[in-house]
Amino acid sequence: MLDICLLGTGGMMPLPYRFLTSMIARINGSSILIDCGEGTQVALRKKGWSAKPVDVICFTHFHADHISGLPGFLLSMANADRTEPVLMIGPKGLSRVVASLRVIARDLPFVVDCLELDDKEHTINLDSCRIKAFRVNHSVPCYGYSITVDRAGRFDADAARALGLDVKYWSRLQKGETVTVDGREYYPSMVMGKERKGLKVTYCTDSRPTRDITENAKGSDLFICEGMYGDTAELDKARDKKHMTFFEAAAMAAEAGVDRLWLTHYSPSLNHPAEYIEETRKIFDKTEVCKDGASVTLVFEDGEASE
Amino acid sequence: MLDICLLGTGGMMPLPYRFLTSMIARINGSSILIDCGEGTQVALRKKGWSAKPVDVICFTHFHADHISGLPGFLLSMANADRTEPVLMIGPKGLSRVVASLRVIARDLPFVVDCLELDDKEHTINLDSCRIKAFRVNHSVPCYGYSITVDRAGRFDADAARALGLDVKYWSRLQKGETVTVDGREYYPSMVMGKERKGLKVTYCTDSRPTRDITENAKGSDLFICEGMYGDTAELDKARDKKHMTFFEAAAMAAEAGVDRLWLTHYSPSLNHPAEYIEETRKIFDKTEVCKDGASVTLVFEDGEASE
Repeated sequence: MLDICLLGTGGMMPLPYRFLTSMIARINGSSILIDCGEGTQVALRKKGWSAKPVDVICFTHFHADHISGLPGFLLSMANADRTEPVLMIGPKGLSRVVASLRVIARDLPFVVDCLELDDKEHTINLDSCRIKAFRVNHSVPCYGYSITVDRAGRFDADAARALGLDVKYWSRLQKGETVTVDGREYYPSMVMGKERKGLKVTYCTDSRPTRDITENAKGSDLFICEGMYGDTAELDKARDKKHMTFFEAAAMAAEAGVDRLWLTHYSPSLNHPAEYIEETRKIFDKTEVCKDGASVTLVFEDGEASE
Repeated sequence: MLDICLLGTGGMMPLPYRFLTSMIARINGSSILIDCGEGTQVALRKKGWSAKPVDVICFTHFHADHISGLPGFLLSMANADRTEPVLMIGPKGLSRVVASLRVIARDLPFVVDCLELDDKEHTINLDSCRIKAFRVNHSVPCYGYSITVDRAGRFDADAARALGLDVKYWSRLQKGETVTVDGREYYPSMVMGKERKGLKVTYCTDSRPTRDITENAKGSDLFICEGMYGDTAELDKARDKKHMTFFEAAAMAAEAGVDRLWLTHYSPSLNHPAEYIEETRKIFDKTEVCKDGASVTLVFEDGEASE
C-alpha cells in the first residue's frame, strides 16, 4: 500500500490558496517527502499527517520554491521527537545548501545524511521501496524521481510441501534466502511464483519534456508532472523558462502509458487550471488537475493492501 | 499616518490557521517589516499589501520562526521589481545569517545592507520615521523595536508675517532650515510652535518582561507584545523559556501607560487565546487578543492624516 499526497500545487511562490509543490508518500510506516518549499510543514499539518516518520527527503533542485521550507520542516520533525537519521537526496551541492539553510536549524536530535546525485540515473534501495532519480532538463541541475514498491511472486505452499520442506523454513525462502536442510539446498525460485506487479509513482518538476521522463514514467500507477502553463499559447514561455504546458505533460503520460496523470506546479498567474482540463484530456484522458491536498491510496492490483 | 498590520500571530511554528508573528508598518509610501518567519510573504499577499516598498526589515532575533521566510520574501520583492537597497537590522551575526539563508536567493536586483546591533539601545533615523532598537531578555540576543513618527510644531503664519518674512522662505523654515534675508537670520523657532505629539508603535517578542521594555513602550499609541501563554499556570514555563504570559504583557502595558496593547506570538498549544481576554483586561483594559491580519491606521491626535 502506498499513500500519496500532493501537499501543494504551486510553482514559483506560495499563494494564500496554494502551497508550493511537494509530494509525500507513506509506505509501511515510513514516509518519503519530495521537495520542501516554504509552507510545506503547514501543508502537512493541514493534511493531518506527521513529519516524524519522514525518513527520506528528495529534492528535485535548489530553486527556493522547492527547498525554502527545509529549516522549518526539520524543526517540526525535531518537535515531533524524531531521533532516527534522515536521508536527503538531491543534485550535487546538496550538502552545502542544506548546511547553509541550517544556520537557523542547527541543533537537531537526529542526523542528516546527504546523498548527492551527479549521474544521469541513480537508484537507492530502501527497506520499504526503491527510489530512482533521473536527470531532467531545467535551467539548473534537476532530477525527477520514481518510487517503486516491488512485489515478489506468490509463495507456492503446494510446491513447498511437494519438496517435503518443513513449514519452519518457508519464511526464509519467502525473504529470498537459500535454505539448506539435510545437505540439500532449496532456492526461493523453487517455491515462489513470478514477481507480481508492484506499485510505482513518478514525480517530475521542473523540466522540459524529455525522453528520459517518458521512459521512467512507464509502468507508473501515478505520474505526477508539472503543468506550469495551461494555455498552449504559452509554449514559447515554457520553452524559455524550461517548464511545460499541460499538453506536453499529457503527451508524455500518453506515450508512457501510465495509469493516471496528476498535474501540479502551476504558475502563480494560472488562477484556474481546471479551465484547461477538457482540452488536455483529449491528449490523455486520465489527467487530473490537482488541488492542494490531493491524495490517493494505491493498492496492489489484486486489492491486497500489503504483503 | 501610520498603517500597522500584524501579518501573523503564531510563535514557534506556523499553523494552518495562524501565520508566524510578523508586523508591517506603512509610512508615506515606505514600509518597515519586523520579523519574517516562514509564510510571511503569503500573509502579506493575503493582506493585499505589496512587498516592493519594504525599505527596512528588522529582526528581533534569529530563531527560525522569526527569519525562516526571508529567502522567499526577498524573492517576492525581486519579483515585484524592487531595485532600491533594503536595510536589514538585527542582532550581531545578522550578516552571516542572511548570507547563509541567501544560498537560495543569491541573485537579487537590489542591494541588501545589514546593520548589526550590539549595544543596549540603538536609534536609526530614516526619512519617514525613527526606529529605536532596545535589547530584551530572551534565550539568545534579542531586540524590541519602537517606530516613531515625529511631528514638528504648527507653523505660525502670523508670526512669520509679523517678522515681515516673504512667503517663499516659509517652507525652508518649516523644514528646520535657517534662512538669511537681507543680512538678517531667521530661525525655525521664530515661526514654529511647540513640537506636537507624533505616532509611536512598540513591538516586542520574545522576552521576559523587563524595565527597558516598559520604558520604551511609554508614549506608544500601540504596544504589540508577545503573549506566549494565556494561562497564569504556565508562568513557570514562561520563565523557563524566556517568554511571557498575557498578564505579564498587560502589566507592562499598564505601567507604561500605552494607548492600547495588542497581544501576539501565541504558543501553538494556545488554540483559543480569546479565552483569557477578560481576565487580562482586569490588568489592562485596552488589551486586544489579535488574530492574523489585525490592522489599524494611526493618525495624529488632531485627526490630520499627514503633515
